[in-house]
Amino acid sequence: MKIAIAGYGNLGKAALEAALGEKDVSLVGVFSRRNVKNLSVPDGVSAYPFSQIADFKGKIDVVLNCMGSARDLPKTTPFLASFFNVVDSFDTHARIKEHFEKTDSAARKAGTTAIVSVGWDPGLFSLSRLYMKSVLAEPVVHTFWGKGVSQGHTDAIREIDGVLFAREYTVPVEAAVEAVRNGKSKNFSEKQLHRRICYVVPKENADTAAIESEIKNMPEYFKGYETTVNFITLDEFLSEHQSMAHAGNVIGIGRGKEGTNRLEFSLFASSNPELTARILLAFSKACVRLNGRGEKGCKTVFDVRPSDLLFDGEKERFLIL
Amino acid sequence: MKIAIAGYGNLGKAALEAALGEKDVSLVGVFSRRNVKNLSVPDGVSAYPFSQIADFKGKIDVVLNCMGSARDLPKTTPFLASFFNVVDSFDTHARIKEHFEKTDSAARKAGTTAIVSVGWDPGLFSLSRLYMKSVLAEPVVHTFWGKGVSQGHTDAIREIDGVLFAREYTVPVEAAVEAVRNGKSKNFSEKQLHRRICYVVPKENADTAAIESEIKNMPEYFKGYETTVNFITLDEFLSEHQSMAHAGNVIGIGRGKEGTNRLEFSLFASSNPELTARILLAFSKACVRLNGRGEKGCKTVFDVRPSDLLFDGEKERFLIL
Repeated sequence: MKIAIAGYGNLGKAALEAALGEKDVSLVGVFSRRNVKNLSVPDGVSAYPFSQIADFKGKIDVVLNCMGSARDLPKTTPFLASFFNVVDSFDTHARIKEHFEKTDSAARKAGTTAIVSVGWDPGLFSLSRLYMKSVLAEPVVHTFWGKGVSQGHTDAIREIDGVLFAREYTVPVEAAVEAVRNGKSKNFSEKQLHRRICYVVPKENADTAAIESEIKNMPEYFKGYETTVNFITLDEFLSEHQSMAHAGNVIGIGRGKEGTNRLEFSLFASSNPELTARILLAFSKACVRLNGRGEKGCKTVFDVRPSDLLFDGEKERFLIL
Repeated sequence: MKIAIAGYGNLGKAALEAALGEKDVSLVGVFSRRNVKNLSVPDGVSAYPFSQIADFKGKIDVVLNCMGSARDLPKTTPFLASFFNVVDSFDTHARIKEHFEKTDSAARKAGTTAIVSVGWDPGLFSLSRLYMKSVLAEPVVHTFWGKGVSQGHTDAIREIDGVLFAREYTVPVEAAVEAVRNGKSKNFSEKQLHRRICYVVPKENADTAAIESEIKNMPEYFKGYETTVNFITLDEFLSEHQSMAHAGNVIGIGRGKEGTNRLEFSLFASSNPELTARILLAFSKACVRLNGRGEKGCKTVFDVRPSDLLFDGEKERFLIL
């Protein structure tokens, strides 16, 4: 299978590593909008300007679009779908439908297959929510994220005056997790499920009290959440707050005659981009299969038969079952 | 959707309750090989002899085959597939391939769709294993069952001389669960993963030391496992050991650059037949959809698109995603 990687940030780099480790994958190259001369790709890997990717039509089975979710994917995934099969990890939940429809239109015209919003949430967590809601009676399904960095919240802090560096960790409220697990709450608000822990490196002479107050009162992002703000040195920031680990769990409770029935899916990623890249890679193989079978247009993880992820032949099917 | 239930043991009764609670399901009836006059079905539910089920051809969209796995399903599922779409929960892992092939042959001839081995293991646990093996690097996936009753082990104890009643609980070895979760073992044998706790009501004047020794030395079933045998009174047996609860988890560990990536799916069923019946019911709806789309023959949970389990319209798809 001939794959290409578009975008060479954390996710693109992780996708490259994942692809290089697979026997049945050959890598056409990395496509970036940065000056490709400055890209540090491993020996033997080709890097091309993204603007030239259309010239590779017919030479790529599937593109892993690893560009930024918020700004880049809404444009580049429909564009790529006009030429290639493509998978992406678009993760702005509220805008998935719009992204899906634009990509679907492009893919149908071109006869390609796209799978959008592939990763762990949306992705594996979506699958968990779906299976739980399908099989439980009167299902109550909650999703917890963390402990892990929220890029959006981190960016919001960095825009505050006097902030040099910052990092926000979203952490599930353990008492809420336990209450959900024990079937004791149906009506937690989002703000009761998570707390927010911020680490801030202030600029010299910055007013830390003002920064703390501005963070804690920021509507939508922090206000109403249990929020802790820690001011730290640059050294501590660089040594203690570089991890890309993330975690989360989906808990589903169903009514039962003799109590509740509970399903839970949990995840710990020592590297968030690494796990997301591996999920993208698995679904990119399925994407090529779907297209080969004539299933064209835009799809999500919900449209992929689990068996399309099996690649060690039909023998494996009965071993895993 | 017109469904019928074949078999009226614990699973059949739970399937009936699940079906009666669904708005979009109409129940044709319960089909049993016992004398239907003696079946205690709820008011308004029809009970018919199983021998008459073929007369209902064209009047049933899907049959939930809830008969015994070991002895009944290998015969009755291929038989039912000659007339109807059918789902079952065949759970003898080593024989699924054979069962699949016999059912496939019958279903293809008749133009019906069957989904076999639907439940939590095989079923939801199989799906977890598949997704984990597909997305993790160098995946190591372990399955733990329990705490819950193993019917096979319970039956084995009941055949021993001097045993009046018995129950065997399979329990994961907590230290093994933790070691697997922490990525510390790749090579646990089955006997290191689970222990076995037995409750036995001896017959009057039975030789309990001999019973205990016979249990602990029974090859395959108990020998080599950490096994505890408790002798109890009939009263205690009836008051403390009737629960149909079960549990289990699937843990997958993948190699990562910065540590391991871990996925875990866990389940607690306050009633094992109740949860299994609900899973069967969800997949029975998908079975009818698959057949309507021309996807005939025998399938497993791996061949069902997750979206085929969604029944509140396409709107729900983007809410769950």
